[in-house]
Amino acid sequence: MTTTVPTAVFLDRLARARASMRASGVDALLVSVGSDLPYLTGYEAMPLERLTMLVVPRDGDATLVIPRLEAPRVVEQPGAFTMRPWDETDDPVAIVADLVARPAVAAVGDTMWARFLVDLLGHWPSSSTRFVRSTTVMNALRMCKDAAEIAALQAAGAAADRVAAQLHAGEIALVGRTEAEVSADIGARLIAEGHDVVNFAIVAAGENAASPHHHAGGHVIRDGELVLCDFGGTMDGYCSDITRCVSLGAPPAEVADAYAVLHEAQAAGVAAGVVGAACHEVDRAARRIITDAGFGQYFIHRTGHGIGMEAHEDPYMVEGNTLPIAPGHAFSVEPGIYVAGRWGMRLEDIVVATVDGPLPMNVADHALVTLG
Amino acid sequence: MTTTVPTAVFLDRLARARASMRASGVDALLVSVGSDLPYLTGYEAMPLERLTMLVVPRDGDATLVIPRLEAPRVVEQPGAFTMRPWDETDDPVAIVADLVARPAVAAVGDTMWARFLVDLLGHWPSSSTRFVRSTTVMNALRMCKDAAEIAALQAAGAAADRVAAQLHAGEIALVGRTEAEVSADIGARLIAEGHDVVNFAIVAAGENAASPHHHAGGHVIRDGELVLCDFGGTMDGYCSDITRCVSLGAPPAEVADAYAVLHEAQAAGVAAGVVGAACHEVDRAARRIITDAGFGQYFIHRTGHGIGMEAHEDPYMVEGNTLPIAPGHAFSVEPGIYVAGRWGMRLEDIVVATVDGPLPMNVADHALVTLG
Repeated sequence: MTTTVPTAVFLDRLARARASMRASGVDALLVSVGSDLPYLTGYEAMPLERLTMLVVPRDGDATLVIPRLEAPRVVEQPGAFTMRPWDETDDPVAIVADLVARPAVAAVGDTMWARFLVDLLGHWPSSSTRFVRSTTVMNALRMCKDAAEIAALQAAGAAADRVAAQLHAGEIALVGRTEAEVSADIGARLIAEGHDVVNFAIVAAGENAASPHHHAGGHVIRDGELVLCDFGGTMDGYCSDITRCVSLGAPPAEVADAYAVLHEAQAAGVAAGVVGAACHEVDRAARRIITDAGFGQYFIHRTGHGIGMEAHEDPYMVEGNTLPIAPGHAFSVEPGIYVAGRWGMRLEDIVVATVDGPLPMNVADHALVTLG
Repeated sequence: MTTTVPTAVFLDRLARARASMRASGVDALLVSVGSDLPYLTGYEAMPLERLTMLVVPRDGDATLVIPRLEAPRVVEQPGAFTMRPWDETDDPVAIVADLVARPAVAAVGDTMWARFLVDLLGHWPSSSTRFVRSTTVMNALRMCKDAAEIAALQAAGAAADRVAAQLHAGEIALVGRTEAEVSADIGARLIAEGHDVVNFAIVAAGENAASPHHHAGGHVIRDGELVLCDFGGTMDGYCSDITRCVSLGAPPAEVADAYAVLHEAQAAGVAAGVVGAACHEVDRAARRIITDAGFGQYFIHRTGHGIGMEAHEDPYMVEGNTLPIAPGHAFSVEPGIYVAGRWGMRLEDIVVATVDGPLPMNVADHALVTLG
């Protein structure tokens, strides 16, 4: 768990987090498992029952409460935080509660395990402490990616694009293999292209693709099927996420026609991702085209999600999200059409909003490539 | 996400969960990401920002609140629960809160994301609802493994043992490779031996092994080093976890002597895992031998953790845990000796308590095998 990010970056981020706490009236920020912790300290907590928690009082020093046996993994960042290792028979939640006088408002990390919040409620009941999500504090920092973060997203996107190109070139065998085998193959290629971790590799063929989050399984892929591949991983701390479909043999006219609609909808969604537009305008732009073509009932999810250190994070491209898109917002644009019992398709790129317009992180061929 | 567990098993488990709720005074059980959900329903939730939650009122029907786009993944279990799919613009926490009249005591899953509990506190403040951990309800069911579960632990343990045997036989190249490369190799072998997922593969050589949870990195393994390998995965829903050390060349006397102590301590810990003994007697038995040999300060963690569908779960073999060991309790016994800046060693088996005594799930050679 080394980090190549300079300490000065963490000091700056902590200062900005405290400024955001003042602006949002948060007295204490508590982050554990998830990406806020490495964003603020460079250290990623193990998702285990032993609590690791960075405690940031608005006006005091930050403390990293950490199991003693994991303390050697931390690269200390002088001036950013001090360590408070705890022993196996200590109560780490009591240690956390003692670090801050009962706060009026405490912000807790989204993916922190609920068991620690349950225990914390014993010290800070919700009648005296109002709990809010850490996004209340951290979105002001994390949603707008800086130049280094955009470069990392671009590198991860380019690596995913190379795997997509291998798919399009027919280098990833499909017919006669199970979805699970193809999923493992794609995962290995993501690693070979530079990713550190595979986050998911959905492979869904034929009617399985009508389930947007299908779990790649024992189905043996056959000629004539449409195959949806949605994959991504983490590379140098930032995520990739791309979806492409291929047709094994010439697609039936119905599928080709639907794909043309999907292709147009996805491009419209990307084009709508301009600075100043409300996030839901991206959803509306893509959905309008699919709805106008008569497929509205088959587009059963939002158009996109933010991405960065997390595969899914704010901002979400969903009806009702009126947040204005700002420079540095990074998000997916991934409309889909799913006809239960028959077929499914989705087309996805990651896009970063810039003052010069939407900047795609993925440029792999957007066509429905026919193989075999 | 198919399951081969018969619906009758889920109906029985839900009935026993409700009995446990009555015994422990819990009005509503809420489980999300984690293993309680597949234990009760066969369905594993995706760890995403879209809420999946099984709501079990003590005296009413169970409901699975689930994102509509994930609903096709669920294998329905008639009579066990009904589905309540929610759409992208719905508020799933409000849906959950409406399913149960404000409960006096609500039990929530340990690994549920804290953001959902934060939102739930808006509906059920902690002044009127006391939140407790779902273990309050579920430990009565899950700690004591039934015959099918023990068979699954045994199969996973045997698969991990085969990888350990490959390590001992010198089939896993060490010298000249990085820890990360060896870690990936071990992971691939766990899969080849039947695991569905690799949960971790710690490889720590030389002084790196003094950090018990060392992240396998770029260190190139050299002749003369002691190499600690701690690995495990999930196979048919149940976990393996084993640690073995190998010495590249004859170990120095100091290391050989320490290993002899460790070996004896681990065996003593296993032998102490008898039905009726307090859990911490396992810790004490192992620790006493290490302490008596003068290494006490170098054994910096508890002796073990429970294991089952989770890699770490109750009961924990730690000082202060006076819970009596019961038939079917499954746990690790893994003392270690860690000398900072020099070397580290750990020896670990999974053990199931039975009326006939402790039954090890791992039987791979316990000696410090010398290679090269």
